[in-house]
Amino acid sequence: MEQQLRVASSIDLRSLDTRSTPGFQGDKAAGETVLSKERDELAELQEKLFAAGRFGDERRVLLVLQAMDTAGKGGILKHVVGSVDPQGVDIAAFKAPTAEEQAHDFLWRVRKRLPEAGMIGVFDRSHYEDVLIHRVHGLSQPDEIDARYGQIVDFEREVVASGTTLIKVMLHISPKEQKKRLAERLKRPDKHWKFNPGDITERACWDDYMTAYQIAIERTSTEEAPWHVVPADRKWYARLAVHRLLLGALRSLGQDWPKADFDVDVERRRLAAT
Amino acid sequence: MEQQLRVASSIDLRSLDTRSTPGFQGDKAAGETVLSKERDELAELQEKLFAAGRFGDERRVLLVLQAMDTAGKGGILKHVVGSVDPQGVDIAAFKAPTAEEQAHDFLWRVRKRLPEAGMIGVFDRSHYEDVLIHRVHGLSQPDEIDARYGQIVDFEREVVASGTTLIKVMLHISPKEQKKRLAERLKRPDKHWKFNPGDITERACWDDYMTAYQIAIERTSTEEAPWHVVPADRKWYARLAVHRLLLGALRSLGQDWPKADFDVDVERRRLAAT
Repeated sequence: MEQQLRVASSIDLRSLDTRSTPGFQGDKAAGETVLSKERDELAELQEKLFAAGRFGDERRVLLVLQAMDTAGKGGILKHVVGSVDPQGVDIAAFKAPTAEEQAHDFLWRVRKRLPEAGMIGVFDRSHYEDVLIHRVHGLSQPDEIDARYGQIVDFEREVVASGTTLIKVMLHISPKEQKKRLAERLKRPDKHWKFNPGDITERACWDDYMTAYQIAIERTSTEEAPWHVVPADRKWYARLAVHRLLLGALRSLGQDWPKADFDVDVERRRLAAT
Repeated sequence: MEQQLRVASSIDLRSLDTRSTPGFQGDKAAGETVLSKERDELAELQEKLFAAGRFGDERRVLLVLQAMDTAGKGGILKHVVGSVDPQGVDIAAFKAPTAEEQAHDFLWRVRKRLPEAGMIGVFDRSHYEDVLIHRVHGLSQPDEIDARYGQIVDFEREVVASGTTLIKVMLHISPKEQKKRLAERLKRPDKHWKFNPGDITERACWDDYMTAYQIAIERTSTEEAPWHVVPADRKWYARLAVHRLLLGALRSLGQDWPKADFDVDVERRRLAAT
């Protein structure tokens, strides 16, 4: 599945079927069964990552989530990220920058939230907003935005070099599916809080966003930090896919429980004597 | 259950039965059934807290966890805190202070990690270390430690006044139970990473710790920020108890879904027109 989702060099977002389930043949029930079966492995690998971090292993994982509104970032956080020990997870939600953040380089606030050794960091939106919403609404000069792609590539290379496995995900929904989900939020009083009139304003810029995403993805998908475009009209598939990306990243670290840095027999005797 | 766990004014930690299950008659299976039944309510109330925070409600919850090693803080974080949406949770683990932290007042690092509006904050150890380990090992002068109790009471009063429901919990195990749990950690290679030779050194100071806890609890248990002593030899009970304290705190906020601050019909029409 990971291979099918990975962006090699170019991608055509508009022609991609957002209801497709690349690399998975089954239906929703089958997908949920797989997810629930693999949950324990994900939790154990996360614990190994965390344990290794306590013993000097510098490695960590960073999941970057980007998407149009309603595409399901929240559900991924709740159901996929939420299935591992919260002590080992650090979620950073990047909203409209504060005055202090705006006074700095666009990567400043992001650097501050990079995960520590042993942790799984999650960026709910990220430094990519500075080439997405900024491009769509002209919040920065074109040449400045142009320079940012290279700055992002350099930054991510540095992040990866410091021991971070970077998983970049765009949850990709169709405008039709978004309309359905926004209507649902407007229908249910318990979902009103998730709705913002600005969502409809942004929705009107769908095509510009697709262009901005496409450029960003093509210019920043590198060997060490590739993008993954996850069709997300089917929530169950998007969750399974991100789960699999996380699982694959953790498996590839090949970590085992850290070896004791003390003499186990000596400690047993010390304990027995108490 | 909350009432039985709450420390009124004085407490005798040494005479408390750490295998008892105050306020709960059932056995382990019954406790787990209750916990799993009430989990959805906890998750919904957490979501309401989070939603309200987005709409200007300043309220938040802070769970302070203190305990001797192996008492089960980690299990509480994983199984109780881990049952709600991780986006709404902010866990701060306070370890031995860094040089920068030591250069400041003992409350400095704690203030920085207070939860934001709408969040459930969790302190895994806390400012209480500065009157616990500091008293046991003489890391501060006695008069300085003595002054800290009052500073803590003032600080917590300020925290509560800012809209925080404060839940202070000491997980209380017996030295015998700790011995069993440490032995288990030494036996299992997948648990070695949780063991630290210092745990046995600290264990030798058990009695001093009980004195330090007792003084701290008695001097800082106030009407607005009471302590709860949770018997923790039975892990299932400790989890149920902390779950109940969290649930009680959220229930007492009496929050409902925020009212839309937009005209729902207008937005429906706007959406339909897209």
